[in-house]
Amino acid sequence: MAERLTIIKVGGKIVESSDTLYRLLADFAAIEGKKLLVHGGGRSATQLAGRLGIETRMVDGRRITDDAMLDVVTMVYGGLVNKRIVAGLQALGLQALGMTGADMDIIRSVKRPVTAAGIDYGWVGDVSRVDGAALARIIDSGVVPVVAPLTHDGHGHILNTNADTMAGATACALARHYDVSLVFCFEKEGVLLDENDDSTVIKHLDGSHYAALKAKGVISGGMIPKLDNAFATLDAGVVRVVITRAANIADGSRGTVISRQ
Amino acid sequence: MAERLTIIKVGGKIVESSDTLYRLLADFAAIEGKKLLVHGGGRSATQLAGRLGIETRMVDGRRITDDAMLDVVTMVYGGLVNKRIVAGLQALGLQALGMTGADMDIIRSVKRPVTAAGIDYGWVGDVSRVDGAALARIIDSGVVPVVAPLTHDGHGHILNTNADTMAGATACALARHYDVSLVFCFEKEGVLLDENDDSTVIKHLDGSHYAALKAKGVISGGMIPKLDNAFATLDAGVVRVVITRAANIADGSRGTVISRQ
Repeated sequence: MAERLTIIKVGGKIVESSDTLYRLLADFAAIEGKKLLVHGGGRSATQLAGRLGIETRMVDGRRITDDAMLDVVTMVYGGLVNKRIVAGLQALGLQALGMTGADMDIIRSVKRPVTAAGIDYGWVGDVSRVDGAALARIIDSGVVPVVAPLTHDGHGHILNTNADTMAGATACALARHYDVSLVFCFEKEGVLLDENDDSTVIKHLDGSHYAALKAKGVISGGMIPKLDNAFATLDAGVVRVVITRAANIADGSRGTVISRQ
Repeated sequence: MAERLTIIKVGGKIVESSDTLYRLLADFAAIEGKKLLVHGGGRSATQLAGRLGIETRMVDGRRITDDAMLDVVTMVYGGLVNKRIVAGLQALGLQALGMTGADMDIIRSVKRPVTAAGIDYGWVGDVSRVDGAALARIIDSGVVPVVAPLTHDGHGHILNTNADTMAGATACALARHYDVSLVFCFEKEGVLLDENDDSTVIKHLDGSHYAALKAKGVISGGMIPKLDNAFATLDAGVVRVVITRAANIADGSRGTVISRQ
């Protein structure tokens, strides 16, 4: 049986405030076995852009990334947020290594073409290849990769890339090497029957249950791409996908466990 | 005989303009054998700080680094400059890995105490330890480290650290593993007898020649800490130290070669 690897994806909100960041890092450090962290940083990027007089434009939850915005996200995701996490994990005794997809060429992407509707996302990349073997060598040497939501195209361009997608693609690539558990952290207890009531968390969500809840409109909006991404990773061999609050990552019994059946 | 390793230290001016950056990366890629790059980024940091309304204060060429300035240098050095170099080197087929001292704990430093003259440099670190063995394992696996001038204290704090000093300390630590050549790039052809005339480059500078030129005032100012640093690395086992223009790094015959005797 393959060794266990836990991949945690955590959004900007958690890693951008010192209080929640240090709680997260302690919880992450407490997870047994091999692990990898993928982080966001969108709020800080929007904040820095604002201070620089650069307008933030989002379309369907994705950031339009022109030259100036690419510099902002490269600074915030690859520098500020990533290095703060790395230094924090080192202080907890973890051999953290901050990486973007460009570092050691671990994740390549393709610049998103202008959409049929004429939307040009700019320097936004869709993941085309994760080097799971290279990542596994790094992880097997005792290192904990801390991955920022940036990739590259192999031709010298950094590309702004969705952190959920990167976590999913990384989990799929590493499923050949480990028993991968993938935890998507967000601001609620899990997938909820009533989005305003944390006590209505769905403990276990399989494919047919998901389809039924989607048809009834109980699951809608931003949860749909998140869950589609989760189910896709299961198809690719990820053993366990959990959606929950960042505060729950050290407690395997919380949140919504996603499974095919 | 140990394998050869070339360490190039290049300042902010070169890596901050696309024209000079891509020329540098091509020249760096052309260097045969194992290599490591240490870069600066001070001009971009000053520029970003200015756009954010943060005042840049320098004392003896070192940046006073309060909380706001630490965020600026972490973004610029660890994010913007470092990732641009990494993506550029990947496009040239080099297996580049961007690192700060916090990443894999390769370089620790100690926060500089308030000086006797009452100067508080803030989050500035003086290198206390380089993990040469860890760096050698990375280099031996075919990876080219690209090191940003940031370190950490092991207690979760990033520290702004002089790039020349980091390059020197890294060269010393790696001298146990390789025949290290260390090249400090700056804006002139080499150490000059007349600082305004590039044709007066001193081809070869040994310890007694240096002492004599210093006594006569021919070598003064910012060259003195640079050369003291260079001589110290020779004492620690570095084989060859060269001071020259970035444009010369692929041509071993240019610049000033420093030696003890």
